[in-house]
Amino acid sequence: ADVAAAQAASARQDSLTKPPRALGRLEELAIFMAGWQGTPRPVIDRAQALVFAGNHGVCAQGVNPFPQEVTAQMVANFDAGGAAINQLCRASGADLSVIALDLDRPTADITEAPAMSADEVLDAIRRGAGAVDADAQVLVLGEMGIGNSTIAAALAHAVFGGAAADWVGRGTGVDDEGLTRKADVVARAVERHAGIRGAALLAALGGREQAAICGAVLQARALSIPVILDGFICTAATAPLFDADPRLLDHCLVGHASREPGHTRLLHEMGKAPILALDMALGEGSGAAVALGVLRAALECHNGMATFAEAGVAGG
Amino acid sequence: ADVAAAQAASARQDSLTKPPRALGRLEELAIFMAGWQGTPRPVIDRAQALVFAGNHGVCAQGVNPFPQEVTAQMVANFDAGGAAINQLCRASGADLSVIALDLDRPTADITEAPAMSADEVLDAIRRGAGAVDADAQVLVLGEMGIGNSTIAAALAHAVFGGAAADWVGRGTGVDDEGLTRKADVVARAVERHAGIRGAALLAALGGREQAAICGAVLQARALSIPVILDGFICTAATAPLFDADPRLLDHCLVGHASREPGHTRLLHEMGKAPILALDMALGEGSGAAVALGVLRAALECHNGMATFAEAGVAGG
Repeated sequence: ADVAAAQAASARQDSLTKPPRALGRLEELAIFMAGWQGTPRPVIDRAQALVFAGNHGVCAQGVNPFPQEVTAQMVANFDAGGAAINQLCRASGADLSVIALDLDRPTADITEAPAMSADEVLDAIRRGAGAVDADAQVLVLGEMGIGNSTIAAALAHAVFGGAAADWVGRGTGVDDEGLTRKADVVARAVERHAGIRGAALLAALGGREQAAICGAVLQARALSIPVILDGFICTAATAPLFDADPRLLDHCLVGHASREPGHTRLLHEMGKAPILALDMALGEGSGAAVALGVLRAALECHNGMATFAEAGVAGG
Repeated sequence: ADVAAAQAASARQDSLTKPPRALGRLEELAIFMAGWQGTPRPVIDRAQALVFAGNHGVCAQGVNPFPQEVTAQMVANFDAGGAAINQLCRASGADLSVIALDLDRPTADITEAPAMSADEVLDAIRRGAGAVDADAQVLVLGEMGIGNSTIAAALAHAVFGGAAADWVGRGTGVDDEGLTRKADVVARAVERHAGIRGAALLAALGGREQAAICGAVLQARALSIPVILDGFICTAATAPLFDADPRLLDHCLVGHASREPGHTRLLHEMGKAPILALDMALGEGSGAAVALGVLRAALECHNGMATFAEAGVAGG
């Protein structure tokens, strides 16, 4: 990040007609954007949202009440404009692209084998990176994939330890029995691939949409485009990068705290403070898209407010 | 509220292409709006924001580092479009009106006398009620007034008890000594007017902007217009109505949890869950205006999403 731009933005915040720090998180967000956009006056004229979809062999373990066909059905719903993320991107002014990653070729069951070959991982990373619009001023990331809250729990458990049960939640709606089964599946998968760390976890436990999210995050970092991650599954997708080097995620905000119980723990481990907490648990980038609206509000204040001197207000 | 409309909205939410309750608070907000607008498909084509400004004799007790002239200077800043609330209303699509209430005639010092006469209170309530646009589909309320975090603390302390120190915070920026002085001032003011309850507290402790906010809240209730209250001072302004009958505030959301420490306690006492928590403490309706963006996002999903049947997605 551009430290000088961030400092100039911080100085500007202190000159605006409000008590110091009265805009709280909005001030921090404006300064963050200044640093990553490399200008004291960051703007969002072009916001991109990317949703990556994948299918998962671990569904054979009965971790999700929905059939895997729902992934493709939801992609069709995205393409037709009928999903939550379509409405939320319209509301927050983001251009949405949905990238379905070989839905007819699910990854392997991670309790029995690595999810993907190295080539498959690289392909997904490349497709994620290649989807990033180099002219975007902020990037919203999301995912869709029946069974992928189990993948997320496995990645988080592998990187941050604890008990498997700490990382599993109801996802799209498993019952108590399903929850116990999910924890067992996660424990077995992580045990099966014990000792693997960093980016190699994508092949072991991954999922194509997780690898694609990592690719998009790295590409955005190379282009200095700030990112808004979504909830538990999207944040967990980046855990292998965090494990390799936490600084790889310095340009990433987290849009919201998901209702999925593992997310709060994950955010604590990764040192990320979510922008919103709206009890959402949908994925698709939905929480990140709502947070984009808050980010826009932050920049409106930053760029549009009068300074004490300009307004002739005492006490600045 | 229209129970049938709310129930129809709730049934619609259950039919949309997402797991049940996956949109969390966004679903609750859509159902709330349906109830108050009296339609299963609530919309916000017209959003109004009202900011009321007043001055306070209690400033003679040294409760605020800023001079009272800043109230009028900030009103001029609102009128010129330079304040945070101007930018936030533009970002969230609200029509802003600022109503300065006799700034050259501060209320009496509440440690020594009632703040206002009954006629003054009625006048302020009427002006608040009269400012409400009958065609608005949602109303954002805010305030400005040097010294009014002391008024807010006094109203909250009078209605909800506890210790005076529980309700005071740094407001626009008092130091430790100022904080102690504020708590003492609040304790003396509430003691001076002990035994007064309900709407009569507006005359005893009030402030014109507090009475105007109550007037706007009551008028919105009469017109069945849902309201978004702002932070500590705006919420505390309605405490006399809550004391008279909590149901008077059933149509009111609270936009955000302020950093001002009394707000969390106040929200707990009043049974209100804030939409946002962004560490803001500015007033002006700023937090409520940001929350309006979330409300719009909720209605976009509610009205724009496909149902399971429409989208041909399994599992609905």
